[in-house]
Amino acid sequence: MIWLKATCKLDFYMESTTPLVLMLRPRTGAQQWVASESYTLDPFVPMAEYTDIYGNLCQRLAAPLGNFSIQTSATVMTEYVVDRAPGAEFVDILSLPEEILAYLLPSRYCESDRFGDLAREITAGALLGYDQVLCIDDWVRNNIRYTPGSSPCPISATEVNQRGEGVCRDLAHLGVALCRSISIPARLVVGYLLGLQPMDLHAWFEAYVGGRWYTFDPTQKEIHGGRITVAYGRDAADVSIFHQFGAGDILSGMEVQVDLLPGAPG
Amino acid sequence: MIWLKATCKLDFYMESTTPLVLMLRPRTGAQQWVASESYTLDPFVPMAEYTDIYGNLCQRLAAPLGNFSIQTSATVMTEYVVDRAPGAEFVDILSLPEEILAYLLPSRYCESDRFGDLAREITAGALLGYDQVLCIDDWVRNNIRYTPGSSPCPISATEVNQRGEGVCRDLAHLGVALCRSISIPARLVVGYLLGLQPMDLHAWFEAYVGGRWYTFDPTQKEIHGGRITVAYGRDAADVSIFHQFGAGDILSGMEVQVDLLPGAPG
Amino acid sequence: MIWLKATCKLDFYMESTTPLVLMLRPRTGAQQWVASESYTLDPFVPMAEYTDIYGNLCQRLAAPLGNFSIQTSATVMTEYVVDRAPGAEFVDILSLPEEILAYLLPSRYCESDRFGDLAREITAGALLGYDQVLCIDDWVRNNIRYTPGSSPCPISATEVNQRGEGVCRDLAHLGVALCRSISIPARLVVGYLLGLQPMDLHAWFEAYVGGRWYTFDPTQKEIHGGRITVAYGRDAADVSIFHQFGAGDILSGMEVQVDLLPGAPG
Amino acid sequence: MIWLKATCKLDFYMESTTPLVLMLRPRTGAQQWVASESYTLDPFVPMAEYTDIYGNLCQRLAAPLGNFSIQTSATVMTEYVVDRAPGAEFVDILSLPEEILAYLLPSRYCESDRFGDLAREITAGALLGYDQVLCIDDWVRNNIRYTPGSSPCPISATEVNQRGEGVCRDLAHLGVALCRSISIPARLVVGYLLGLQPMDLHAWFEAYVGGRWYTFDPTQKEIHGGRITVAYGRDAADVSIFHQFGAGDILSGMEVQVDLLPGAPG
Repeated sequence: MIWLKATCKLDFYMESTTPLVLMLRPRTGAQQWVASESYTLDPFVPMAEYTDIYGNLCQRLAAPLGNFSIQTSATVMTEYVVDRAPGAEFVDILSLPEEILAYLLPSRYCESDRFGDLAREITAGALLGYDQVLCIDDWVRNNIRYTPGSSPCPISATEVNQRGEGVCRDLAHLGVALCRSISIPARLVVGYLLGLQPMDLHAWFEAYVGGRWYTFDPTQKEIHGGRITVAYGRDAADVSIFHQFGAGDILSGMEVQVDLLPGAPG
Repeated sequence: MIWLKATCKLDFYMESTTPLVLMLRPRTGAQQWVASESYTLDPFVPMAEYTDIYGNLCQRLAAPLGNFSIQTSATVMTEYVVDRAPGAEFVDILSLPEEILAYLLPSRYCESDRFGDLAREITAGALLGYDQVLCIDDWVRNNIRYTPGSSPCPISATEVNQRGEGVCRDLAHLGVALCRSISIPARLVVGYLLGLQPMDLHAWFEAYVGGRWYTFDPTQKEIHGGRITVAYGRDAADVSIFHQFGAGDILSGMEVQVDLLPGAPG
Repeated sequence: MIWLKATCKLDFYMESTTPLVLMLRPRTGAQQWVASESYTLDPFVPMAEYTDIYGNLCQRLAAPLGNFSIQTSATVMTEYVVDRAPGAEFVDILSLPEEILAYLLPSRYCESDRFGDLAREITAGALLGYDQVLCIDDWVRNNIRYTPGSSPCPISATEVNQRGEGVCRDLAHLGVALCRSISIPARLVVGYLLGLQPMDLHAWFEAYVGGRWYTFDPTQKEIHGGRITVAYGRDAADVSIFHQFGAGDILSGMEVQVDLLPGAPG
Repeated sequence: MIWLKATCKLDFYMESTTPLVLMLRPRTGAQQWVASESYTLDPFVPMAEYTDIYGNLCQRLAAPLGNFSIQTSATVMTEYVVDRAPGAEFVDILSLPEEILAYLLPSRYCESDRFGDLAREITAGALLGYDQVLCIDDWVRNNIRYTPGSSPCPISATEVNQRGEGVCRDLAHLGVALCRSISIPARLVVGYLLGLQPMDLHAWFEAYVGGRWYTFDPTQKEIHGGRITVAYGRDAADVSIFHQFGAGDILSGMEVQVDLLPGAPG
């Protein structure tokens, strides 16, 4: 059990008033406890908060003309070691909890309806369940070059597979698409990872086997925890730290920091 | 106000026990009242019912080896004339009801993130809102040939646009993608349409303008009602009358019938 | 596994237009499958349907001046034998599913905050869990005289306990209050019971032990199934087959029928 | 628009491990924006967070043997002036949003089914809607003596009315029961009030008229804002800052502080 403090600062320059939907407030969940959390807008503008279909806390606001920045921070308890479960079993479709079923369907950037053959080939011979996901995770790591910064706009799993390289989100999308194509529920996670080089917001994926979600990260050879989930969903279409309505390149700067705290916060 | 009776019979042949998720029970909603409804399985197998993230009633079951059929019927009150609202205004992102926001996002078969330029061209000069959707609806009708039966697997809006032809679902997907790309919420509807030639299950789309959902159908020159909504969602990935888990062509027959009843059912 | 057909006819006479909320449409659930179902209003008036906080399907309408009737029927598969589980364990508060927690709280007609001493006395020596509920069920059956028709308005568990007699709903309320007072989740069920004498809508309760809901009915010495759940909730304040807004005695007649069908409906 | 910082410290002494459900994390809502927030346990114990049926964020944990304390703080933007709307209209039952309907039903401490006659007498001659609630608010203020500290356990509206005095929660319960008895949705609010004497957590009520919730507080002659909503629900059965499972007096101390900040937090 470790304590992390994560901060994220987004600087925008708006050429016109622009509606934004933001997803930057981590919530307490199965694997993390949010002890404190702050959210600062400069200049301050009114905003509304709502919970989306996946349970993420979202903010909706009209970003004003000119400079605008959002700074968030969170102090969170989590684990440094990621749970692993070789042998954890495939969950039969009829036994999946209802709220998991949506994570079996193809989505914008995870065209799982097109990956069945590849996934069966990759996982041939593996025990059904966790071990299949391990095969997929390894395959993505070995076949898609992880190139931070290479893909400003999200591309889909099919495109990632063709290009053979991508950012963390792209590798995760491909992992998700492959899992779903063999009826294993999978979802994209956006969050913070302690020690990530270069430091940035990160994306990885979770697969549902053996009755719970497990963490996989094709960008990391030796997976470790120290992760804070900010939001999760079917893919990056649903999970965007900010979604702007209207064209233009509005983000002028972004700083992310994740620190290990020496002990529990007072 | 008219009364319709719709029936749908699906015949399957299973080479092995196959999990199915079905969406075939219409529910009472803003524009229809379900007075009676039945659902018969032959042979009978146990099933579980749940409500998905869009509010559709879904059934989950293991279809047994061999012949298996599902027959559903519903008696529904609805309108013959579809509401139209030229001039109905675009709803600002900040004013949309929370539950509508998901219908702005790109989805598996509606890559709205790739259609902004085309949508702006198609709707150039139109009043923001309903009139833009009319332009989109007309453009799809005039540019994509409606060819019932041409596309057994769903293809995406990008593919539909390239092919220049498609089934009802394809035309609806393209309409949805175009609407969302200019920040108008849109969703796919699957249901029954009185008088459809050839009779089959049908798909169309709805767009949210002027504070409510309006019906559009690019397959019909003179749009009319007599529609029963069976399910709606972001696209056909979410709204499938049956979703099978496991490969193979299992549907061996399908019959759909929609009749106008002379009066209210006793 | 048996098939039942239940019908309920409510006749009203309204002295003025009266808003009604109705709860008369059984839904498929853990222990029943609704194969067909119908709902007829005479005269027909527009209505809206919604799902309440407990998952019940409710109808809202303005009942018109004069005679008004509602007739519903449902064909449902259920079990004739009620599951029993002596020894099923008390579920620790921290292990209860989230959606069950509300059923631990006191409610309008189940003042569980006032029954702790009595419940501990009644259940003294019993294994924690199912066996405690059996003690409560027996105690209510032996101490509160079941008198169909004796209590037109709902009275609370405290009042029932003082009077020493009540209708089915009253006995169920007392059972619920006693269970909750020792931290066992409990809820009121309204529905049909095959063979009930005199035939009427019925009420019983369920308690959550051993990881699921179990059925208890203090009005019946030898409990059997053949039950169709129409609605459930914390107590009769939430679960009323009709709730009128405005004073006056509007119900002029009610007929309930429950038949055993010889086989599965075609 | 003002900025408040509120802190609450609860000290417990447990004679045995005790399950607790807590409701102490204010959320951003229609009338407040939570800019930062913290939650500290001493000693730290694992906990799970969930959202209840009213949208409140709840924590569930096992409080350990011995001393245990919880300290929470929140920095919140709100208004100093409470919105008033004389003349705002009664909302017809058929026009109420679905999620509001539960606030019309009687509940544990608000037996609205017993207050119709009194409410009609109190509100005789008033315009339907906001003005009726004003009459109720005044009547409670003038007829029930506000006596902080007089009632450690919640008592119901009927009991409050008989006693003629009560704590803030009691007056609010009576206000709620009277509103609901004339079909005006009403709910209990628990939160902080700037300047409250003596400082403590506070309770008041909201009524739904003219299409939104309005604030009423029978303990205050000149109502003002500076309020932070921590939780709301049908009554104190649902809205308890802490709910213990198991008997015994566990709270050994409580400190509440609410400060006006000079400007927006950096």
